[in-house]
Amino acid sequence: MLRKLLAFKLLNSRNHDFIIKLREILGFYPSDLSLYQIALTHKSASYTLKGERVNNERLEFLGDAILDAVISDFLYKKYPNEREGFLTEMRSKIVNGEKLKELAVKIKIEDFVNQKTNLPYTSSRIFEDAFEALIGAIYLDKGYKKVYKFINKKIIVKHLDFPKLELINHNYKSQLIEWSQKTKSQIEFNSFSDGDSLNNFTSQVIINDTIIGLGKGNSKKEAEQNAAQEALITIREFEY
Amino acid sequence: MLRKLLAFKLLNSRNHDFIIKLREILGFYPSDLSLYQIALTHKSASYTLKGERVNNERLEFLGDAILDAVISDFLYKKYPNEREGFLTEMRSKIVNGEKLKELAVKIKIEDFVNQKTNLPYTSSRIFEDAFEALIGAIYLDKGYKKVYKFINKKIIVKHLDFPKLELINHNYKSQLIEWSQKTKSQIEFNSFSDGDSLNNFTSQVIINDTIIGLGKGNSKKEAEQNAAQEALITIREFEY
Repeated sequence: MLRKLLAFKLLNSRNHDFIIKLREILGFYPSDLSLYQIALTHKSASYTLKGERVNNERLEFLGDAILDAVISDFLYKKYPNEREGFLTEMRSKIVNGEKLKELAVKIKIEDFVNQKTNLPYTSSRIFEDAFEALIGAIYLDKGYKKVYKFINKKIIVKHLDFPKLELINHNYKSQLIEWSQKTKSQIEFNSFSDGDSLNNFTSQVIINDTIIGLGKGNSKKEAEQNAAQEALITIREFEY
Repeated sequence: MLRKLLAFKLLNSRNHDFIIKLREILGFYPSDLSLYQIALTHKSASYTLKGERVNNERLEFLGDAILDAVISDFLYKKYPNEREGFLTEMRSKIVNGEKLKELAVKIKIEDFVNQKTNLPYTSSRIFEDAFEALIGAIYLDKGYKKVYKFINKKIIVKHLDFPKLELINHNYKSQLIEWSQKTKSQIEFNSFSDGDSLNNFTSQVIINDTIIGLGKGNSKKEAEQNAAQEALITIREFEY
């Protein structure tokens, strides 16, 4: 009985600390604590809840989409005179693996994530996944308006430098991939080396078995950038 | 004066019909009519509003993200015991070009879209773009809850057959592309023919200059499917 009581107190004190720490990160008190516990649990630290193995993968699926929606709304309103291409590019500068990892560290969830892995490749996605899952948890716990406010107040205003983001160099391959994601098109890059001469790399961009961009360069990367740039021009001309 | 009055009446009667037709599609009366007018205007029929050329491209950018968020939330709740991979696959079966075009036709916006083009390739995206833009317009006009309700009531319940969607055959290349979109990874397919023998096509799936899948087949398509399947196994094993 005493042991049970002690365990109960310990559990409560652990939750107490968890709630206080969450309050710092979120700016509000969570209602359904279990959602946040799941959000901060990497697959490697899965646990059993009501007979099901749980971790943050499902919440990450949800949070990823919610984050995209909020960022899209924000950009739509922030840049009323910019065209869709600019908005898509800006969104991809914010919602990408590296940036999300950076944001996860900035809002200080890194030593807050339950994980039991030391794999270097995996660990690089642990924080961005937890960050997206946290967005999913807030959305389910408090609704769309509240998660919008959280993202605006705690992420956008505090940690995003828009003049700097606008200036990031154009990466044509990224733009093309972003376009393919937006339009659900399947693009392929075919690259090959064609001898020892200068400009000896050739790259093709292919959609539906049609070459829509062709580029040459001194490296595979350069050839791909040139092919992607040509493909983007083709796309704009023919309004794929 | 009389002409002005007539023009005013004509405009109003045109708006009246537009409102009635919108009411049928939406299930509610629109508040900000201009949003819906923009949503149903393809780039080819752009017009000038307050000194800016407008068409539905910006709203499509927004609506695409909002639709993804609502469908993700819906699937998250509909399938409480399914893992993230299943949810991602289901979402990609709903939110893809062909399906959206089909839905646009089902909710009868096809003869409602302003467009001035006869290009066959373009026209194929006109309706899905307008559909997404309409979602964006509802979101801006009425908010997230209302657009959620619209998508649930007018799209999901009426036009989506979940048992059928669940049964759609696995396409490994699509799954891989879906994964790359979700994780913002850059994947490449390299395919080549290696002679006149059987299984003479080889396909590679490459991430960060590393081959993560290799497949052979009697056609490029078959080789790619095999390579994609192997790549998916690699991804799951190494938790990319």
